[in-house]
Amino acid sequence: MTITGQSLIGAMSVRGTQGTFHGIDARTGEALEPAFGGATQDDLQRACALAEAAFDSFRETPLESRAVFLETIGEQILAIGDALIERCMAETGLPRARLEGERARTVGQLRLFASVLRNGDFVDARIDPAQPDRKPMPRVDLRLRNIAIGPVAVFGASNFPLAFSVAGGDTASALAAGCPVIVKAHGAHPGTSELVGQAIQRAVQQCALPEGVFSLLFDSGLSIGQALVADARIKAVGFTGSRAGGVALMKIANAREEPVPVYAEMSSINPVVLLPGALGTRGETIAQQFAASLTLGAGQFCTNPGLVLAVDGDALHAFEQAASAALATTNASTMLTPGIHANYVKGVERLDAHAAVARLASGQAGGPFDAQAALFATTAQAFRADAALREEVFGPASLIVRCRDLDELHSVLKSLDGQLTIAVHLDQDDRTACHALLPTLERKAGRILANGFGTGVEVGHAMVHGGPFPATSDARTTSVGSLAIERFLRPVSYQDLPDELLPQALLERNPLSVARRIDGVVQREE
Amino acid sequence: MTITGQSLIGAMSVRGTQGTFHGIDARTGEALEPAFGGATQDDLQRACALAEAAFDSFRETPLESRAVFLETIGEQILAIGDALIERCMAETGLPRARLEGERARTVGQLRLFASVLRNGDFVDARIDPAQPDRKPMPRVDLRLRNIAIGPVAVFGASNFPLAFSVAGGDTASALAAGCPVIVKAHGAHPGTSELVGQAIQRAVQQCALPEGVFSLLFDSGLSIGQALVADARIKAVGFTGSRAGGVALMKIANAREEPVPVYAEMSSINPVVLLPGALGTRGETIAQQFAASLTLGAGQFCTNPGLVLAVDGDALHAFEQAASAALATTNASTMLTPGIHANYVKGVERLDAHAAVARLASGQAGGPFDAQAALFATTAQAFRADAALREEVFGPASLIVRCRDLDELHSVLKSLDGQLTIAVHLDQDDRTACHALLPTLERKAGRILANGFGTGVEVGHAMVHGGPFPATSDARTTSVGSLAIERFLRPVSYQDLPDELLPQALLERNPLSVARRIDGVVQREE
Repeated sequence: MTITGQSLIGAMSVRGTQGTFHGIDARTGEALEPAFGGATQDDLQRACALAEAAFDSFRETPLESRAVFLETIGEQILAIGDALIERCMAETGLPRARLEGERARTVGQLRLFASVLRNGDFVDARIDPAQPDRKPMPRVDLRLRNIAIGPVAVFGASNFPLAFSVAGGDTASALAAGCPVIVKAHGAHPGTSELVGQAIQRAVQQCALPEGVFSLLFDSGLSIGQALVADARIKAVGFTGSRAGGVALMKIANAREEPVPVYAEMSSINPVVLLPGALGTRGETIAQQFAASLTLGAGQFCTNPGLVLAVDGDALHAFEQAASAALATTNASTMLTPGIHANYVKGVERLDAHAAVARLASGQAGGPFDAQAALFATTAQAFRADAALREEVFGPASLIVRCRDLDELHSVLKSLDGQLTIAVHLDQDDRTACHALLPTLERKAGRILANGFGTGVEVGHAMVHGGPFPATSDARTTSVGSLAIERFLRPVSYQDLPDELLPQALLERNPLSVARRIDGVVQREE
Repeated sequence: MTITGQSLIGAMSVRGTQGTFHGIDARTGEALEPAFGGATQDDLQRACALAEAAFDSFRETPLESRAVFLETIGEQILAIGDALIERCMAETGLPRARLEGERARTVGQLRLFASVLRNGDFVDARIDPAQPDRKPMPRVDLRLRNIAIGPVAVFGASNFPLAFSVAGGDTASALAAGCPVIVKAHGAHPGTSELVGQAIQRAVQQCALPEGVFSLLFDSGLSIGQALVADARIKAVGFTGSRAGGVALMKIANAREEPVPVYAEMSSINPVVLLPGALGTRGETIAQQFAASLTLGAGQFCTNPGLVLAVDGDALHAFEQAASAALATTNASTMLTPGIHANYVKGVERLDAHAAVARLASGQAGGPFDAQAALFATTAQAFRADAALREEVFGPASLIVRCRDLDELHSVLKSLDGQLTIAVHLDQDDRTACHALLPTLERKAGRILANGFGTGVEVGHAMVHGGPFPATSDARTTSVGSLAIERFLRPVSYQDLPDELLPQALLERNPLSVARRIDGVVQREE
């Protein structure tokens, strides 16, 4: 469990020779040892060839074996112990408790997908039995199941170095689906990435799976990531990061001879709607919760509340004062990388310089790479007039949009891009107003929440961490929760195949005991 | 039920002023009355505005109402009576029996989706109940359902003027999902399109739905279709046609500010694998079935068997002779349009001119726009050396690839692009060989069939009419069968919403009685 600076290609560790880079101590900006070698195009070719070679056998591993594999990855991650947390703290500036929680979440995700495999519903087994006597033509026997889509490229995210990175949700759901995974490590936490990658590598070995099931590549620039998405053997891409990064990958994937799906989770300002009743009766409490949500993890959540919408008036002023007071005492926290910090500072400066935007509050200042919270306000008219105000400022900054009335608030909502979340704060007497907004909320966001903030993302079966563009590249899916497995599956139909040639899930005797849709109606074994 | 040559925009009939065109008698090439007016950009704007306005209410119509709506469309199509069949025969050259069968199929598809709505599983209702006492953090209440994706553009196909056109599978599945539909009529059967469009228009009125649920636009060129896909109000596209056409629409959709999914079913040569046992014992019977499948509907099926793979030898020669004999007596049939006929003739000439390809047989000659069947042969080596031989020749032409042995046959399969179908003819003693091919077949095709031909496409729950690119633009779906509804849905999650604000499917008391996944396990009302 030593960090070596090497890419993991199947069962091997390989020192890349395409340039070097270091992990950076987020607090000090200093380089951490060891140096990481950038993978070469040859390394990439090898990883893709191994993934391709592993695909047909891995996708047909028994569901129970694949479940055990996912659980083994979780055990191997836990077995790294405190070395993982400490390296991750250094590379990301995130505090211990957060990272221990995130590790638990990561292991929990792997276990969730193990349960999805044991449940078996994701196979979507369907049988339309033959009807040899049907008139005018006999009906053939048709059986359908989902199969894995192919080797998947996963791009680790900077902001969840465990839960959305090497063994994060994309990797867990792709492996669960039966897809080999090649991870392009995020340059902001290479040591963390290598440790987790080694854990997966050990799990592959322990479960006696083909080595090509998993590889991890370090990229000293952008060329390895780009070549990975362009490679004909890669059949889907998972990404969490910036809009520019996601759109660039979408372009590469669409320009391929065979275009492939890119699941990019990108950009969201997560509007918070304060309805008049709630604002009037408990605006100050909501303000404190808002300040806490805004500054959680230095504001580096995809679901960070970057926009507040409310009707202007005394109640909103009271909210603004309470939120400002709460933020003024909030300590600065270290951002993930100096680059993210620099971008945040630029975004705040842009708002400060905007003629129609007023700064309401600032958080405490801190170290050189610490984010100082910032709260701004503007009018609905000004907000609607300038599309730049709808752009995400990644970090603990938020913009309050003062609306004339609920109609104007609704118009502002309608003018927004797609979002991961929209939160509505409402009381009993706001329900009619909320009901009127709901169709718009459904069209704009993947998750609608009442009286809360989006920064907590439950990992379960009913979670959608997704939403219309540019929140994601594909609103038909989620990147968190059990439904995420569907991104990496495709249906195949088998007509009149002799029983012995059918896949297990479709054999007449149903040895897997999976639920099956017979002529359109699901039948479960008891 | 008169054909007027007008576009249908919501409840109105509107004579387009952007040029005119006529339906063409497929047998004679002569223009049919009346003239059709090409829709203008203003017409398109109106149709999109109506669809957008109808969307929120249509997507929340009760499931039973939407089911009745689909059934009403079917009734209204039947009520047109023989006028529909006669116009369609004239416009397409297809025989009466085929079109009567296709009409039944079209009505059957609408009824299938009505049953999907009454079943309710497509909603994918999920509930992860709150756990207020969970440590360290209480768990919120999360509920998920699928909602309609938005207004959908459908491009009618030329080769199924009823089942894949105005009220075809794309329209039926999009309406079932709750999406308003704007159809761009196929220029090859405008009169048929208008008659069916009027039937849908009447059904909208009879069911008292908002008029924007359906519009039908005639396009005198390409500009209306292109503008439709580019329009920000359109959220998905269904298309069946050529690879060039589908790829052009994909490009437009990807270049939008908000990219949207395009479901294009495009190009497939539908390999037929003849394994040695089957070829030896019943090669002649298979040859006769093959000739019948190849020439069905003048070879204008997406699933037409354009490629035959077998090990060279006496048994294959006997097959070739039997297939040639069967084709030699097959009458020519009229193709859908003079343009399709001209392309077919060009494709056949290209094969005739190929140095490594030999013509084995020709069907009977016929009228000026009739397709004469053609059978060719080549070697595996020549086939693999020239990618042009993998291109679809739309019509009753097929190419036999003589392979040295099963290994070479497998290599040829691996070199192929994605396919809608791959058929394998096998006997008991071919099972080991078939088993070895299966992983490749699964990766290459949406449907694998034994001892049959792909030209019959059952409309059911276990059908996949799809497959990897270029068979379709999106291998994760099907354009035939009940699963097609999933193309037009996206999941939305509701967190801690007061019960009275939740959608019906997620209300605690489950008034819709839909199956719901509670903490990952499906519960059904008895």
